[in-house]
Amino acid sequence: MEQYLNPLKSRYASKEMLYIFSPKFKYTTWRKLWYNLALVQQELGININNDQLNELSKQIENIDFKLVEKYEKKFQHEVMAHLYAYADLVGEDAKKILHLGVTSAYLMDNTDLIQIKEALLLIEKKLTEIIIILKQFSIKYKDLATLAYTHLQEAQLTTLGKRSSLWLQSLIFDFKELKFILSNMCFRGVKGTVGNQSSFKELFLSNFDKVKDLDINLAKKMGFEKVYKITGQTYDRKFDSSILNFLSNLAQSAHKITNDIRFMQHLREIEENFEKHQIGSSAMPYKRNPIYSERVASLAKFIISLQSSGGLIATTQWLERTLDDSACKRLNIPQAFLATDAILILLNKIFSNIKVNERIIEKHVQTEMPFILTEDILMKATKNGGDRQILHEKIRTYAMQVKENLYLGKNENNLIQLILNDKSFKLTSKDINEILNPNQNIGFAPSQVEDFIKEIIDPIIKNQ
Amino acid sequence: MEQYLNPLKSRYASKEMLYIFSPKFKYTTWRKLWYNLALVQQELGININNDQLNELSKQIENIDFKLVEKYEKKFQHEVMAHLYAYADLVGEDAKKILHLGVTSAYLMDNTDLIQIKEALLLIEKKLTEIIIILKQFSIKYKDLATLAYTHLQEAQLTTLGKRSSLWLQSLIFDFKELKFILSNMCFRGVKGTVGNQSSFKELFLSNFDKVKDLDINLAKKMGFEKVYKITGQTYDRKFDSSILNFLSNLAQSAHKITNDIRFMQHLREIEENFEKHQIGSSAMPYKRNPIYSERVASLAKFIISLQSSGGLIATTQWLERTLDDSACKRLNIPQAFLATDAILILLNKIFSNIKVNERIIEKHVQTEMPFILTEDILMKATKNGGDRQILHEKIRTYAMQVKENLYLGKNENNLIQLILNDKSFKLTSKDINEILNPNQNIGFAPSQVEDFIKEIIDPIIKNQ
Amino acid sequence: MEQYLNPLKSRYASKEMLYIFSPKFKYTTWRKLWYNLALVQQELGININNDQLNELSKQIENIDFKLVEKYEKKFQHEVMAHLYAYADLVGEDAKKILHLGVTSAYLMDNTDLIQIKEALLLIEKKLTEIIIILKQFSIKYKDLATLAYTHLQEAQLTTLGKRSSLWLQSLIFDFKELKFILSNMCFRGVKGTVGNQSSFKELFLSNFDKVKDLDINLAKKMGFEKVYKITGQTYDRKFDSSILNFLSNLAQSAHKITNDIRFMQHLREIEENFEKHQIGSSAMPYKRNPIYSERVASLAKFIISLQSSGGLIATTQWLERTLDDSACKRLNIPQAFLATDAILILLNKIFSNIKVNERIIEKHVQTEMPFILTEDILMKATKNGGDRQILHEKIRTYAMQVKENLYLGKNENNLIQLILNDKSFKLTSKDINEILNPNQNIGFAPSQVEDFIKEIIDPIIKNQ
Amino acid sequence: MEQYLNPLKSRYASKEMLYIFSPKFKYTTWRKLWYNLALVQQELGININNDQLNELSKQIENIDFKLVEKYEKKFQHEVMAHLYAYADLVGEDAKKILHLGVTSAYLMDNTDLIQIKEALLLIEKKLTEIIIILKQFSIKYKDLATLAYTHLQEAQLTTLGKRSSLWLQSLIFDFKELKFILSNMCFRGVKGTVGNQSSFKELFLSNFDKVKDLDINLAKKMGFEKVYKITGQTYDRKFDSSILNFLSNLAQSAHKITNDIRFMQHLREIEENFEKHQIGSSAMPYKRNPIYSERVASLAKFIISLQSSGGLIATTQWLERTLDDSACKRLNIPQAFLATDAILILLNKIFSNIKVNERIIEKHVQTEMPFILTEDILMKATKNGGDRQILHEKIRTYAMQVKENLYLGKNENNLIQLILNDKSFKLTSKDINEILNPNQNIGFAPSQVEDFIKEIIDPIIKNQ
Repeated sequence: MEQYLNPLKSRYASKEMLYIFSPKFKYTTWRKLWYNLALVQQELGININNDQLNELSKQIENIDFKLVEKYEKKFQHEVMAHLYAYADLVGEDAKKILHLGVTSAYLMDNTDLIQIKEALLLIEKKLTEIIIILKQFSIKYKDLATLAYTHLQEAQLTTLGKRSSLWLQSLIFDFKELKFILSNMCFRGVKGTVGNQSSFKELFLSNFDKVKDLDINLAKKMGFEKVYKITGQTYDRKFDSSILNFLSNLAQSAHKITNDIRFMQHLREIEENFEKHQIGSSAMPYKRNPIYSERVASLAKFIISLQSSGGLIATTQWLERTLDDSACKRLNIPQAFLATDAILILLNKIFSNIKVNERIIEKHVQTEMPFILTEDILMKATKNGGDRQILHEKIRTYAMQVKENLYLGKNENNLIQLILNDKSFKLTSKDINEILNPNQNIGFAPSQVEDFIKEIIDPIIKNQ
Repeated sequence: MEQYLNPLKSRYASKEMLYIFSPKFKYTTWRKLWYNLALVQQELGININNDQLNELSKQIENIDFKLVEKYEKKFQHEVMAHLYAYADLVGEDAKKILHLGVTSAYLMDNTDLIQIKEALLLIEKKLTEIIIILKQFSIKYKDLATLAYTHLQEAQLTTLGKRSSLWLQSLIFDFKELKFILSNMCFRGVKGTVGNQSSFKELFLSNFDKVKDLDINLAKKMGFEKVYKITGQTYDRKFDSSILNFLSNLAQSAHKITNDIRFMQHLREIEENFEKHQIGSSAMPYKRNPIYSERVASLAKFIISLQSSGGLIATTQWLERTLDDSACKRLNIPQAFLATDAILILLNKIFSNIKVNERIIEKHVQTEMPFILTEDILMKATKNGGDRQILHEKIRTYAMQVKENLYLGKNENNLIQLILNDKSFKLTSKDINEILNPNQNIGFAPSQVEDFIKEIIDPIIKNQ
Repeated sequence: MEQYLNPLKSRYASKEMLYIFSPKFKYTTWRKLWYNLALVQQELGININNDQLNELSKQIENIDFKLVEKYEKKFQHEVMAHLYAYADLVGEDAKKILHLGVTSAYLMDNTDLIQIKEALLLIEKKLTEIIIILKQFSIKYKDLATLAYTHLQEAQLTTLGKRSSLWLQSLIFDFKELKFILSNMCFRGVKGTVGNQSSFKELFLSNFDKVKDLDINLAKKMGFEKVYKITGQTYDRKFDSSILNFLSNLAQSAHKITNDIRFMQHLREIEENFEKHQIGSSAMPYKRNPIYSERVASLAKFIISLQSSGGLIATTQWLERTLDDSACKRLNIPQAFLATDAILILLNKIFSNIKVNERIIEKHVQTEMPFILTEDILMKATKNGGDRQILHEKIRTYAMQVKENLYLGKNENNLIQLILNDKSFKLTSKDINEILNPNQNIGFAPSQVEDFIKEIIDPIIKNQ
Repeated sequence: MEQYLNPLKSRYASKEMLYIFSPKFKYTTWRKLWYNLALVQQELGININNDQLNELSKQIENIDFKLVEKYEKKFQHEVMAHLYAYADLVGEDAKKILHLGVTSAYLMDNTDLIQIKEALLLIEKKLTEIIIILKQFSIKYKDLATLAYTHLQEAQLTTLGKRSSLWLQSLIFDFKELKFILSNMCFRGVKGTVGNQSSFKELFLSNFDKVKDLDINLAKKMGFEKVYKITGQTYDRKFDSSILNFLSNLAQSAHKITNDIRFMQHLREIEENFEKHQIGSSAMPYKRNPIYSERVASLAKFIISLQSSGGLIATTQWLERTLDDSACKRLNIPQAFLATDAILILLNKIFSNIKVNERIIEKHVQTEMPFILTEDILMKATKNGGDRQILHEKIRTYAMQVKENLYLGKNENNLIQLILNDKSFKLTSKDINEILNPNQNIGFAPSQVEDFIKEIIDPIIKNQ
């Protein structure tokens, strides 16, 4: 309790995501990388025997962190410390085949990629769940007319399911980016100190094909389909930057979505679930604050902010590699994933229990109806032969007057009457009644939702 | 001369890119959008005659900007001003079919997308040219041994062509992102004020299929394969954000590449072309400063900085649309493209005329050789049965001593001798001579370059 | 019309600010710097005669930009081009004393500082005007009770003047920063190529005091009180970064303020002025969109985004100077000032004509009153001997029920009755009536406003 | 080991800084705030007795975190949980006076400010130490001539102490900003739910002066000289933004400084201390990498990145307060301080043990001398009556030729001879010999350093 407590750890993120970025995951992955290196080297004809491999394999999970710490104090070198600690366990014979031809970056860079891949897959799973929940929400409310807002002013009608489709659309944007990243993702493989694989020239008697096999076979053993053909000491830090871009993009969607929810909760049209015994405010106990949505927006700001660190690193890497990436990479990548994980947990919580106050929504719609219909009236009048530009100016003037009167306290909205009285609109009561048909005024919103889900969302869900 | 002069315009960007973001391009595109709207509406059965269409078509290029300005002062509304100015030209009859069922966002948003698409295609063309130049450079120098640097310290050897392949690799990263964006790009189409296409319900008698046809047919006429199924008043601003991410990513590559060049020019290994009569510095006239590379880095910082504005907009759009995107969009998107255009022009200029001082490069390699070989010696010694960890410590100590002596002025590098004298290395003079073979020490760099170009670069170039 | 048209120039910024960043201002300042250099050199005993000075002085405004362009094409060096063009005008004799001992950075860096200072002073003037307007607004509405919002949910009462004092408080924050920057601002002075003033060693016979005099006297002639004692080739780019920080901070205030206005306009409590003939929306002509506030928020995002470029430059300047600042400085500093200028024009416009709908505000207050009073009831009950924690839980439960009923359509707010009926609150009708006194419920808001203006705002205005 | 381990905690930051942002510090501060609230209320006449105060005082350090956790699970409200846990300890009587008139923000916001102030004071102390070390370094090396670099190309001479004065100058910039922040810093005080202090109207019988006393007296008890006159629910988040700006600015200085060191270590002119047994690289054991400088640059990128989160929060706070600041504030502020703390520890380590290779530096100077002198030659020739512009062009051409020859392998630098041979320079061997005097060529660098330290640095150190 006497040190900084990171709330991503103590409050917000899931066990699964915290584990991916834990020392345990990291250093067992290092041992897997050492073991599989030897395994693939054996497969490619290097003189390594099964006993040696077995020794390596047996000790993968058995990490003595105290011992590692002792070695690290001595060498001031993280990889050497872990290498010695592993070597101590596997015996003299297996020790000789450890780390053959590789350098620190083999462990660090490949492990970073493995962690990122695991984290992306976890994000993919959670994001898919939210897409499914939002799909169901969109279908359920595809016909529920609701006021649309532009400039935060009441505009025409949309439906609640159409609005949630906008959110889906944003998330689909992110989802496609995630799939693009995953499908292009490469293992760093074995490249040596400066990327020229020279240490393997001896081992494989100048046979480049064998070294290529080593690279790709190792990649596959560690769960990757592809391996970078070109690296310096490390994989291009543009990749990390692309990860932070993606996480920021997803955070931006979440920020936009929860801003909308916070606004709708202000209107009382929807509400986040409010748990029994939950205290909203010590001074205003009756308030129902959209605190999960606010927390999403807050975490999103943190992630968006971290985005620029990816670019800063990629931009300032000099020649074959400089080390001014390392400390930052230990902070920005894990925390961006942990905060994204927290956001997805919160979004799931919000949408799984959201309360839709349909009667409030309907009441809002009814009050604004006459104003909303001006565009439809204009269309009808134009169809009846009116001049659009002249009528546009007229209807504007009428609507202004009526709004002004309402501001000043008049209860009656007489806009429709004013229009009927003006003959240049060439409109009859029958025309107006057709327009007042509420189903008209949501446009094609329900059809759009159906079409979108059938053509875009369902294929995505099916492929997961 | 009494107003701010934007140097992107006066100094850095190309005519082509400046035209794409010009008023001329923008407002003729608006007229094309009005014309094609009417055309597709006619095709779908709306009562529009060929004379009306012809009137619209004839006046597309004929914009009276003075008149538009007059209308804009009156209405304080950009679209209305252009609509009136166009209407004035096409005559009473054609006037009636103008802007039928659409709103400002139809013009603005679709035009933004068209400008972005044109600009992306121009970037694609210029980026491809640079990829081709860098490919040729990489092939030409794939065998030229050069000192690699890690931590800005001399490390092992690489080749110049391998280093330029790192740059290619970064650009390929960006190129793939560009292709991803282009292949996913959608037209905004006709969606109406809040996105529900309600104004077309009347026009097309509630036939959603016809409205979908209108949308996709218009998209195709304007050069797009796809159209968004879901929008609010506007297309999702995440798209703009993705554009700024891409341009920032490309700028980051350019920054990294030119940092490397600036460092190599410091080493005198390469030099930017220096034009006759060019004055490097008024006080130090002999200097050959890498000013094009520095300008690339400078413009890159501007673009990288603009990136965050995309996220700021996407994050703070409320409900169906707020207008706090507009003024920023007029500044960040065009200028990010103009600055990127300038960077690509500069990169082309740099690599088309770069001077490689091979003799300097070779001299640097020779001086560092004995240090560079320690890893190879370690490998050979390990192969001969030595214990890697023990020898690693020994070779470190020897190298430290020798470096220290060189720092203190000794001329002779006796590292090799010290190792031969130490029997625990189990190395003979013959072993060392094999290692000293210069072709050994660049590892597989040339093969990597060939493999990379054949498997990754050539297919990309071929498909352009 | 066939090139990019920067809207800061064509639409948003003032003539005065555009002039400060114009070629005219910049290059006449160069000539003033050349002239004053010679003048101070003469004063310090260098052999320069009055005729030579007169020649320089006469030609300061007389710039032939065509000729400069010709020279720049030849030399590819901006300073040399202007030096030759000036030299052509002043005659053989005066020519000899031009640019004596100085380098390009003398002109460029000092001019940058002069432009920034002029721009800051213009910002200071416009910001002070807005502070005065907001002070008057705050005084006028210091007693007008209005619903406060936390979590965008109705909370207790504040007053409109208190809310605008929050905005003032933000602007005062920025104002103090501006004053801090101005009071610490230094001239770059004459420092030579790498900052060691070596070229003046000859001229002033190794007399450092004379060179210090040259530096500070020149600074004073150009309007500065202080000069940097230490520079490389250029002044520390941290200064530019501090300028962009300040402009971003001011933009952030403006964004926060206009967000509040946009929300209040949504509530119809206030409205931006809406000009006659102004067209709000082509499809929804009756709408009154807060477009100036939205434009402020939009420009703010642009400025906030540019902020990071200052840090990018400061961070990556190498040793005595690299040129990867230049092109970016020509874009980010002027445009950040131009956009800030535009924001201040807009804020002035908004607050000079804002419409306060007092009756709407009052109606909102009345509806929420019973809920708002829960904290006061709690205080009174605690004072009467109740246990705060127990009553807090009770009042929460009651309020929840009442809100729920209101959601479900009940018209009557019976919260007060429920509390009176619960004896554990130990409250009488008299107690409640005291609480219901509306003047109670705005707390000390009016006094706070008065105190704040007297103690903080007025002294600031007086000193301007 | 199965959760994310934040390296700021496990590796980089100091105990002192970690404690400031620990739960222990935070929650004991809450209790101090509760205790001092009651104490000042008593002093101002509220009926609170000494026994009650003693009970509160005794339990400040005695926090049962398990119990708090239990309450937090129940209430889902951090303040309530701690209030109940504290109340359980102090007994029935003292319980009644707890939290009188205040809300969560009283605790949270004031504690945030206290933590920030403590952290700033720790930064101030550490920064002052580095300023002192750099002052001593600058004095020690004020006369040591060294090559200056512009464009990363050898330019004229400076001295090592002059270069380190550039670093000092950057840090002084930050130091002044720190002092500005500290001197303007205000306590948030007691303001109530929406900032109107209404809960104290009852308590203090509408006496605003008493409430102002409560505010300022509490501030003083908690170590502040000033209190905000105006707040919403919280202090203006612009303050947090200004803290992140400051920390980013300091990080930018550190990045610039260590970039310079890394470049000088590349030149072998200086070296970071290299500890015995330290392993530089597993594959290149002889390398002396500037890893502390690289780590500084890496942590700096993280801090710079966090900067934008401050602006994001300040920009998007709505009306009297929204909660989308909270989770982000728990991450960005503490970690920005922890990383800055780590940077200052590293800078101290670097400069306390840095090795200056004077002989290497001298050798570099000698090799470049003839080129460096061109500006001095130009000055002398101008003084002898030559035309500066003509000679500038000539000397450029000569220098180019000589450089070209050196590139091509010629050993001799015959630039001086070429100039002596050209009569238009009007220079004699005697003139040249005067110029070749090495003391001439560092300009006034030593005097500048002395002047800067006496006038700027020493007064700052003395005042600490």
